[in-house]
Amino acid sequence: MKNKKELRIGLIGCGFMGRTHSNAYKRVGDFFPALDYLPVLKAVCARNGDKVKSFAEQWGYESFETDWRRLIERKDIDAVDICTPNDSHAEIARAAALAGKMVLCEKPLARTLAESQTMVDAVEKAGVPNMVWYNYRRIPAVTLAKQIVDSGKLGRIFHFRANFLQDWTINANLPQGGEGLWRMDAAVSGSGVLGDLLSHCIDTAMWLNGGIRDVSAMMETFIKERMHQLTGHVEQVSIDDACTFHCHFHNGSLGNFESTRYARGHKALYTFEINGANASLRWDLHDLNRLEFFDNGDESRLKGWRSIHVTDGDHPYMDKWWVPGLGIGYEHSFVHQAADFLESLTTGKPCSPTFSEALETQKVCQAVYDSALTGTWRDTSINQ
Amino acid sequence: MKNKKELRIGLIGCGFMGRTHSNAYKRVGDFFPALDYLPVLKAVCARNGDKVKSFAEQWGYESFETDWRRLIERKDIDAVDICTPNDSHAEIARAAALAGKMVLCEKPLARTLAESQTMVDAVEKAGVPNMVWYNYRRIPAVTLAKQIVDSGKLGRIFHFRANFLQDWTINANLPQGGEGLWRMDAAVSGSGVLGDLLSHCIDTAMWLNGGIRDVSAMMETFIKERMHQLTGHVEQVSIDDACTFHCHFHNGSLGNFESTRYARGHKALYTFEINGANASLRWDLHDLNRLEFFDNGDESRLKGWRSIHVTDGDHPYMDKWWVPGLGIGYEHSFVHQAADFLESLTTGKPCSPTFSEALETQKVCQAVYDSALTGTWRDTSINQ
Amino acid sequence: MKNKKELRIGLIGCGFMGRTHSNAYKRVGDFFPALDYLPVLKAVCARNGDKVKSFAEQWGYESFETDWRRLIERKDIDAVDICTPNDSHAEIARAAALAGKMVLCEKPLARTLAESQTMVDAVEKAGVPNMVWYNYRRIPAVTLAKQIVDSGKLGRIFHFRANFLQDWTINANLPQGGEGLWRMDAAVSGSGVLGDLLSHCIDTAMWLNGGIRDVSAMMETFIKERMHQLTGHVEQVSIDDACTFHCHFHNGSLGNFESTRYARGHKALYTFEINGANASLRWDLHDLNRLEFFDNGDESRLKGWRSIHVTDGDHPYMDKWWVPGLGIGYEHSFVHQAADFLESLTTGKPCSPTFSEALETQKVCQAVYDSALTGTWRDTSINQ
Amino acid sequence: MKNKKELRIGLIGCGFMGRTHSNAYKRVGDFFPALDYLPVLKAVCARNGDKVKSFAEQWGYESFETDWRRLIERKDIDAVDICTPNDSHAEIARAAALAGKMVLCEKPLARTLAESQTMVDAVEKAGVPNMVWYNYRRIPAVTLAKQIVDSGKLGRIFHFRANFLQDWTINANLPQGGEGLWRMDAAVSGSGVLGDLLSHCIDTAMWLNGGIRDVSAMMETFIKERMHQLTGHVEQVSIDDACTFHCHFHNGSLGNFESTRYARGHKALYTFEINGANASLRWDLHDLNRLEFFDNGDESRLKGWRSIHVTDGDHPYMDKWWVPGLGIGYEHSFVHQAADFLESLTTGKPCSPTFSEALETQKVCQAVYDSALTGTWRDTSINQ
Repeated sequence: MKNKKELRIGLIGCGFMGRTHSNAYKRVGDFFPALDYLPVLKAVCARNGDKVKSFAEQWGYESFETDWRRLIERKDIDAVDICTPNDSHAEIARAAALAGKMVLCEKPLARTLAESQTMVDAVEKAGVPNMVWYNYRRIPAVTLAKQIVDSGKLGRIFHFRANFLQDWTINANLPQGGEGLWRMDAAVSGSGVLGDLLSHCIDTAMWLNGGIRDVSAMMETFIKERMHQLTGHVEQVSIDDACTFHCHFHNGSLGNFESTRYARGHKALYTFEINGANASLRWDLHDLNRLEFFDNGDESRLKGWRSIHVTDGDHPYMDKWWVPGLGIGYEHSFVHQAADFLESLTTGKPCSPTFSEALETQKVCQAVYDSALTGTWRDTSINQ
Repeated sequence: MKNKKELRIGLIGCGFMGRTHSNAYKRVGDFFPALDYLPVLKAVCARNGDKVKSFAEQWGYESFETDWRRLIERKDIDAVDICTPNDSHAEIARAAALAGKMVLCEKPLARTLAESQTMVDAVEKAGVPNMVWYNYRRIPAVTLAKQIVDSGKLGRIFHFRANFLQDWTINANLPQGGEGLWRMDAAVSGSGVLGDLLSHCIDTAMWLNGGIRDVSAMMETFIKERMHQLTGHVEQVSIDDACTFHCHFHNGSLGNFESTRYARGHKALYTFEINGANASLRWDLHDLNRLEFFDNGDESRLKGWRSIHVTDGDHPYMDKWWVPGLGIGYEHSFVHQAADFLESLTTGKPCSPTFSEALETQKVCQAVYDSALTGTWRDTSINQ
Repeated sequence: MKNKKELRIGLIGCGFMGRTHSNAYKRVGDFFPALDYLPVLKAVCARNGDKVKSFAEQWGYESFETDWRRLIERKDIDAVDICTPNDSHAEIARAAALAGKMVLCEKPLARTLAESQTMVDAVEKAGVPNMVWYNYRRIPAVTLAKQIVDSGKLGRIFHFRANFLQDWTINANLPQGGEGLWRMDAAVSGSGVLGDLLSHCIDTAMWLNGGIRDVSAMMETFIKERMHQLTGHVEQVSIDDACTFHCHFHNGSLGNFESTRYARGHKALYTFEINGANASLRWDLHDLNRLEFFDNGDESRLKGWRSIHVTDGDHPYMDKWWVPGLGIGYEHSFVHQAADFLESLTTGKPCSPTFSEALETQKVCQAVYDSALTGTWRDTSINQ
Repeated sequence: MKNKKELRIGLIGCGFMGRTHSNAYKRVGDFFPALDYLPVLKAVCARNGDKVKSFAEQWGYESFETDWRRLIERKDIDAVDICTPNDSHAEIARAAALAGKMVLCEKPLARTLAESQTMVDAVEKAGVPNMVWYNYRRIPAVTLAKQIVDSGKLGRIFHFRANFLQDWTINANLPQGGEGLWRMDAAVSGSGVLGDLLSHCIDTAMWLNGGIRDVSAMMETFIKERMHQLTGHVEQVSIDDACTFHCHFHNGSLGNFESTRYARGHKALYTFEINGANASLRWDLHDLNRLEFFDNGDESRLKGWRSIHVTDGDHPYMDKWWVPGLGIGYEHSFVHQAADFLESLTTGKPCSPTFSEALETQKVCQAVYDSALTGTWRDTSINQ
């Protein structure tokens, strides 16, 4: 084995995403042995000392901090990975960039377009490698979709549609805010399903189908008041429970997007479909190892949607895992993204999506938000 | 067998819908033997004499006409069934009502809300039985969905979404207008996918989920010019190739609808899904004998979408056909609707959807059209 | 319309199959207008006078009989169609052939191979057109499977597997024998699932994959005693509730077949799959408009099972029905078989499967039966 | 974090299974933090020095050996994990047991029943913890199936059927034997699909449905000669390419099993279904996060197969991973089995399947083999 260079990670936040990223760092070396760089779990940071200590021990971080500013100051950290709630993304990212650290950030970039812009400015000024964890791009079936689109097989694109359907907040007794539920407090999250779910759909959509020109949106908060965990009072719910929009892409195709946390029966049903003149594709997170593909060039009587089980050695990333037919899971998308980031340190090329690329998603999110509030079509360039 | 009363049918139009209706009339007696009324194929009418003669012979009509006014004048006709292109629905329906005939009409009611209103006025003034062939209500799986919704099992409704996806007009060399292609000429059809496809989705949606309050829509014509069959010239395409809208229902739920003839790989993929607090339902025309049902009341570890094969004796209409497990097809929805219409003659109750009920769909269609043209939200009551 | 020749039908038996055949005769002219022959429902026969009278009225038979011998004697009958329980197939068929009638017979040909042989001898001696209603061959997706196999696309065949799974006799209180339940009395039916279900699988299998050389089988009667409807006594159950066998085809491929009426959750789940070196096919009666097809010649990364929605104009029989995407049902297989039989009267070619071809299925059934009883492998030619 | 006890692992074999086991050991601590024991990757052993060194470095083993006897002698090894080809399982296991090591062994236990028996004898005499890696039991959907069966929901069982379909050896130019292809050389593997694939099916079947009484089997070698990698000569193929059997379970239900490496289009399609009087279950490795469940106790009109997405917190093992809706993969079954083995060290209870339990599977395999060779039914107790 060749000598590996170390990438010393400082992780901030030890919730759900802290776990997915930690797992990615720990596994990438086992499955991508040819990489020059290997992550080292140098430090993890969270405000709650007991919790962060326990997390550090469980995952094998060498040390921990309870103040993210101290973590950023440390000389033994190469890359800061931001897994905190959305309201601290911008401040941490700016500070980390200023300190010359590489910056990796969970999606969405920040609560608002304005906040996001400051982050892009900071990493570009500092000239540090940066990346946003829109992990679904690295599900092998989704990456294969990208390869097929790029091959030109689809021809002129007419439609892109995506849904992200969940059901976890239907219970009116579920509180909002605070531990485990900051996603339901817009002061922290910026928005509800728009930033949490639709941002994923928008990132994938623009990756596959190019930019979005203008949008017309609708948002709804079905349950208007919930107990707030931090105040203990029943308060107005500030987030969008559901958000739907249709749009025009720059290439002339139409988009239709829907997200909700009130679709009984669906836990994380992220689906998308793209229809071209010559072929179509669709994908479903609940059956994530498959890509469906319709090729209008097939013999007429034998045309049909192909269910591609994306587990073969010539499928993206799959030569790194097991043998054909044996599926992988959600978490592997993070391993792949970590591998691609490490690879980018060798090649010197940015690893997509960069902060700058993720800003484009923020622009669409902002336009969706503004459209829903005003009941009018909004151009995505209106706030630029 | 008891003595049957005759319902003497005069069918106008012998295209695709003329066939589905004729088949319905011929089969209903075989499978619904308890009905008091039996349709008699008295006459069929179409302008093309050779074609209508051949159709009459093939289907067993006793006679034929080439002028619909003559058919309406005939004393031996009880019910006029309108299967012509949309631009003649209103005039024929008004004349038939005036002549005291029962009036059955293919959907959509007419090209515009205004035209449709005159039809409602005419049948109501004449006091004649009337019905519009929104046939999908009588697919057994869809009727079962209605029964489940009416049982209250779904609880508060949050979402209704429906798509109607086709791919038959992607070819730019397909001409528009005239024989077989009048659906692509807005002067005849009134609109493209809006009246042809979305009207079905809207009818089902309002039947299952109540009225629609306001809409925000987008329409697109992907191929701007096509050769017109009647003029022989390349002319501007007047129809919508795709139409998408989101909306609010009166019950507070959100709707999202999409239709297109440019979704490569889909021939007639009409799907809908309804999400309630306690249960959800979904259906797919390409697998029409199934209804999917998610019941949140199921034991926690065992919750899942149930694939109900709607072919059992206690499923709607299915006791009339074969044995459990053996599916029926698209055409049976028309047989069921014919049976229900014949039954309504005995009970004296209107057979849904009546012209008046179908007018509600026209109001939504008009609001969708106006919204798409203006880029603004439109209230469905705005034109009333 | 050209002048049609009449084929005057005498139907014997007015149960489930009497209905499917009657429907086929009544519809074939509407949908296959180019045929030279048109069936005429001349007479129906059943022992129960009230029942047969009612059936004749409902379906429009011109007359009825209560003694099948009288029906066969009638000069105004061209073709005798046998829809009675299995124990009378042989006697009726021999008499009809002797009377010079064409003979159509429901499957299985008879209770035993020996009985079946007498029927083949009779129709061949009489030289009359004959056919057995193995209707599943004419489901368009199954016919398409045959076309694909015949095209050679599959290459060397390795495997054929088929299941026919039902659940209707699990209830131990279900009686056996008599009206509606003769299939559960081996004295009448000859066997249980073997003749009722597996015979269909075997017919399709040999049609697609050639003859079967030898078999190794297992049969089981799960519920040993049931009340007999005719005697009113609890009696030993004489039929097989489940029957499974594996086999060698003459082409060297392996077969695996299973049938049961004790598979909870399945009503009529007839499925088959065929695996060739270059391609594979599978089909499912519960989703009968689809054929799944895997082509190993597809581009490597894009290989997958294609779900062919067999509703297009270039699919077998489908140009006769509606428009692409709109499915048909179980009953249509009988319409198609009727059409093919009528066509065969014009061409003079036998319509498959003839009695002689169906005898091959009986040979396999007999070998399966004998193998299960003896616990040994049985050659299918052993009784010839 | 409490102080962990170490379980020092000595892994023998660094092929496909060496990787899955190593991954399991490395991940189990991250996701099962409550365990008392933590695996330590002490040493890995393989004959090829370069290969084992590279493997040790990639996976983080502290040391490596090239002679398994040396590894077994080492005092710093607590548990020997056998991932070698089948021909060395017995010798290594016996030696390891004799040395007082815990013994974990890849399936199948050995090439023959006789070999397997010596292994059981050895571990029982030594009194060391032991386990066989029939990993599919620990796919959460399969574990859930076990819980449902154990709850009695299925009632009397009538049928169990399982298939394991692959297509990787269809190419006649694929050599046999040696590196990567020892599974195709019966001298090493003991058999073809019987030991490799059917043994999995049999293990799951008996776990869910109890013991198998007798079997009737068929085996086939489609491609009779292949080049042998070790000799360089074209030699007779000694393994079974396909193996099918039906059987009786002790509980009176019927079994039907099929496995092959010649089913074009399937990579690792392990499926099973169990039918009880009251409910049924089925599962599919290509969509491994789902369990299908039919409950005959559901309201009549609403009965249907439920597609349970086994990703919720109350599903087996799933509280350890991510959030509802996010699937896991094949490899996780090994992590779960490792966790259960570690847990068993605390509780002192054996971890299923032990060598003794796996011997039952060997008995069925032997009976299948003998049945196929002799063409007769074989009792599974015949060789005891």
